Amino acid sequence: MDNLLLIAASESNANLYYASGFLAPDSFIYLKTYGESFLLMSDLEVDRARLQSKVNHVLSYSDYEAKAKQHKDKPTTADVISILLKEKGISELTVPATFPLEYGDALRALGYKLTIKREPFFEERGIKNTEEVAAIRKTQIAVEEAVNDLFDLLREATIQDGYIISDGIPISSETLRQKLHLMLMGKGCIAEHSIIACGVDACDPHQVGQGLLRANEPIVFDIFPRSIATRYFADMSRTIVKGVASDGMKKLYDTVLEGQELGISRVRAGANGKAIHDEIVALFESRGYKTGRVDGRMQGFFHGTGHGVGLDIHESPSISGRDCILKTGEVVTVEPGLYYPEIGAVRIEDMVLVEENGCKNLTTYPKFLEIP
Amino acid sequence: MDNLLLIAASESNANLYYASGFLAPDSFIYLKTYGESFLLMSDLEVDRARLQSKVNHVLSYSDYEAKAKQHKDKPTTADVISILLKEKGISELTVPATFPLEYGDALRALGYKLTIKREPFFEERGIKNTEEVAAIRKTQIAVEEAVNDLFDLLREATIQDGYIISDGIPISSETLRQKLHLMLMGKGCIAEHSIIACGVDACDPHQVGQGLLRANEPIVFDIFPRSIATRYFADMSRTIVKGVASDGMKKLYDTVLEGQELGISRVRAGANGKAIHDEIVALFESRGYKTGRVDGRMQGFFHGTGHGVGLDIHESPSISGRDCILKTGEVVTVEPGLYYPEIGAVRIEDMVLVEENGCKNLTTYPKFLEIP
Repeated sequence: MDNLLLIAASESNANLYYASGFLAPDSFIYLKTYGESFLLMSDLEVDRARLQSKVNHVLSYSDYEAKAKQHKDKPTTADVISILLKEKGISELTVPATFPLEYGDALRALGYKLTIKREPFFEERGIKNTEEVAAIRKTQIAVEEAVNDLFDLLREATIQDGYIISDGIPISSETLRQKLHLMLMGKGCIAEHSIIACGVDACDPHQVGQGLLRANEPIVFDIFPRSIATRYFADMSRTIVKGVASDGMKKLYDTVLEGQELGISRVRAGANGKAIHDEIVALFESRGYKTGRVDGRMQGFFHGTGHGVGLDIHESPSISGRDCILKTGEVVTVEPGLYYPEIGAVRIEDMVLVEENGCKNLTTYPKFLEIP
Repeated sequence: MDNLLLIAASESNANLYYASGFLAPDSFIYLKTYGESFLLMSDLEVDRARLQSKVNHVLSYSDYEAKAKQHKDKPTTADVISILLKEKGISELTVPATFPLEYGDALRALGYKLTIKREPFFEERGIKNTEEVAAIRKTQIAVEEAVNDLFDLLREATIQDGYIISDGIPISSETLRQKLHLMLMGKGCIAEHSIIACGVDACDPHQVGQGLLRANEPIVFDIFPRSIATRYFADMSRTIVKGVASDGMKKLYDTVLEGQELGISRVRAGANGKAIHDEIVALFESRGYKTGRVDGRMQGFFHGTGHGVGLDIHESPSISGRDCILKTGEVVTVEPGLYYPEIGAVRIEDMVLVEENGCKNLTTYPKFLEIP
């Protein structure tokens, strides 16, 4: 039985939130030993932690600091933690790869043996239970409703001088993103860096997009909000053209869609993410879509095929160039893309639940290229 | 001249965003040596980093990985970084206290000497320039406008059976928070955990608040959004009573206000945050407001007086029980509070800019207890 130690702020550390059920903006201490879990909390948070956390014991940091002061005038955080560790007879600890170096050094200097465990730190976090799948699906419903409203807006818009006009005004990435974020917040979801990127902008997969949207050019939507209530993310990408897509864009779209469908057909428990990714890469290559640097810029398919989704937007497992065996209950994206400044950009992304003999698609939104 | 190394995701690491000017959801590598700054970026991000970051050199992680593979079949991240460090003739590195232990261990195993530097990792991040102060003030204007709209809503609301009624419906923390967050997003700001906590809920300073708001009881508003455009936060708290405050609440409010005004009057370059905090604690004690655990629950003034605000909502400096000398150009909150389940809860918070001979209040919103 490992003794697990985490020190982080749970608002930005999903492992700690998962383990403690407690959300706080500042760093706090979590210890698990022999199935019992403990928090060491500041005076500011100790009472709220007793109400809201799911650990067995919420202890007062001040109390332990007072004990530490019996041995040392100005005890460090490690000295205070050490009092608790001694009470529990612990001398070896398992910590995450991201454990703060300062505390690692200080605990080792006090004689503790630290073993680093990489992600997944909590294997069970990857395996979503019914409630977690429902939470992800609920976030996804908000995404699909909001995207549908955006696409309706584009459908009703007109084209003038190559721009997309709504209510007499050309639509920009920024205004559409703000509309999207307001809609998502109205549905209890928070989003910040949603991608609505047009044309060459979209050839940079993490470029959020800026400026006026242009007709007859690809617009990549990649939307990944978090539910405020459950903290579970969803993630979906669609690529559309308002107006008419070029033949090159149509072929690019069909190829990415074929690759995505291939990927989804391969997802099942026991499959290696690397094999799935490599098969999509090979398909694209066989269709003549090369990946690499051209004139100093990356082109082709130069990101992973997918990643786990849950309390983090990017979490284990991965479907990418690294070996990674998929497990029943994991929720993973399948989102190949192809990017060529001379032709266009396409990314199509669904979120699927890994099952024993295949997968269940948690994304129900249709896929189409043109919005007339 | 220190060689600085950061490895983090800049969306959740303000130091890395401050140093690189580049925002990314996944971990990347920053190195600064002899005034020159470098990023080592994945294929996915390398081109966007060249466009958007402010470092001198954006290097391809893949290129360095290829070089590392000439020496080792499966190079680790540390092996890849080591290639760059050797090119630059670096053997000693300064890293932040939160530097990931895994990379710390791996770099030390390769022979590098790591020195940990605590916050402020970049001293200059604490000293806000004119542009940064303007950004914080702009976020604060959004806060004040949104709070004013909320208070107008409460002013127009009626009281029935002890609840606060607007449009025929009793107002809850949750609905008011959602209205607030939508208003803030309409002003280009993102907020998630805004506190709108009533009565006993408000006696827990970080409890966000839930359920129906009650008239004639204190409601603590603590609002700290981030600007989407600049990423600078603002932070303001106000405490109001819809209806009539009890005499105990009025006395509590006046005492906290007196403490807050005292604190603001003491903020200046060279002042010790601990001295300011201790003086407010002493004032409250002298008025009979004791701090400590009563029936197992914290009461009184059991949090710090203030904290720095910038790219993080909580950053250096602090006005609290720890020694901390304030410097010209720092932006810091002054937010004492008193919390007694039997009387009520009050927190009043402004954000001020530390100046040589005093401070400038960046908060212009009035302070009042009752909303009739």
